[in-house]
Amino acid sequence: MSLSFDLLPHKPLIIVISGPSGAGKDSVLHEMKKRNLPIHFVVTANTRPPRPNEKEGVDYFFVSRERFEEMIANNELIEYSAVYKDYKGVPRAQVEKALQSGKDVVMRLDVQGAKKMRKLYPQALLIFLIPANEEEWMERLKKRAGQAPADLELRILKAQEELLILPVFDYVVVNPQYKLSQAVDVVEAILKAEHHRTSPRSASL
Amino acid sequence: MSLSFDLLPHKPLIIVISGPSGAGKDSVLHEMKKRNLPIHFVVTANTRPPRPNEKEGVDYFFVSRERFEEMIANNELIEYSAVYKDYKGVPRAQVEKALQSGKDVVMRLDVQGAKKMRKLYPQALLIFLIPANEEEWMERLKKRAGQAPADLELRILKAQEELLILPVFDYVVVNPQYKLSQAVDVVEAILKAEHHRTSPRSASL
Repeated sequence: MSLSFDLLPHKPLIIVISGPSGAGKDSVLHEMKKRNLPIHFVVTANTRPPRPNEKEGVDYFFVSRERFEEMIANNELIEYSAVYKDYKGVPRAQVEKALQSGKDVVMRLDVQGAKKMRKLYPQALLIFLIPANEEEWMERLKKRAGQAPADLELRILKAQEELLILPVFDYVVVNPQYKLSQAVDVVEAILKAEHHRTSPRSASL
Repeated sequence: MSLSFDLLPHKPLIIVISGPSGAGKDSVLHEMKKRNLPIHFVVTANTRPPRPNEKEGVDYFFVSRERFEEMIANNELIEYSAVYKDYKGVPRAQVEKALQSGKDVVMRLDVQGAKKMRKLYPQALLIFLIPANEEEWMERLKKRAGQAPADLELRILKAQEELLILPVFDYVVVNPQYKLSQAVDVVEAILKAEHHRTSPRSASL
């Protein structure tokens, strides 16, 4: 008789956490890391100089522009983008290694990056974070824009545009500023559920 | 600016808990009921006489054969089947009322009933329970077969056949006999995740 466990091969997932600017992607990632889930969190390669509190290999891999362009040329990145004058990208070897060890891989991408991931890896699991309401959203965008009203206007326009990409995603999770753990509970439930699909997403690169 | 909550209309789900004979469907349902989730558990109509511990309207609606055949004729049942000499079926009005109140609706069906539901309501959420291993499974099937070896053989054959219907389902959940709450945790996670899909299943009948 065919055994139940054969029906449930564990397949690691590639999970993209994204959402418009000001949705609180970093806070959700931060809270997820604190929960000690059996997940590999991607450490992104970045060409900008480290900030005082940032640690090499923990927050980012800080690489030179030359090295980054070499990585692009050698197809060492799954996905990359230019952020102002700098580059940011997801190292392929790191993700492959984690998947081979059976771990789910979580990466934080902006909505354009998430859209690219959907095309490159249709089997990726895409989660879209949204702020709980307009007030919280504006508050976060204002903080980032600082004192420049023109900058704020641009950020609002961009964030509104980013909302339109929602249908590309599999799930949408509200991220209320003062109830962060609720959002992370939902993300955890999504990962748990996805591991019980009868037609699992295969997660090789 | 478009508000986040507009993106998340709450749509109630139609959930079918099924699986081969001996998978422990009743135990899972029983444990779910104990958790006081905001769910309507379908009370099935049944033509067999109530057992001593069974309550009308709680365990089943006990109806006469004549009344049941009238319900069939009037299209009052979403799904029904003949069980030996008796009928069992899901009352449509009950499910519609629960969905209209915004509640998820859970029903327990055998795999043939679940297959029928998939055809009738492609948007239904189908969960397939399986025993954790062959030993536990045999143990449960033996209990049901009682002392008749021929009966046991038939039950095993039928259960094996039922396993083949798995691909019709959305999710598969292992139900370990002595860790029932684990299975129910997964079912809860599935429901939570499903309420966060970007393309929700619409749950009208």
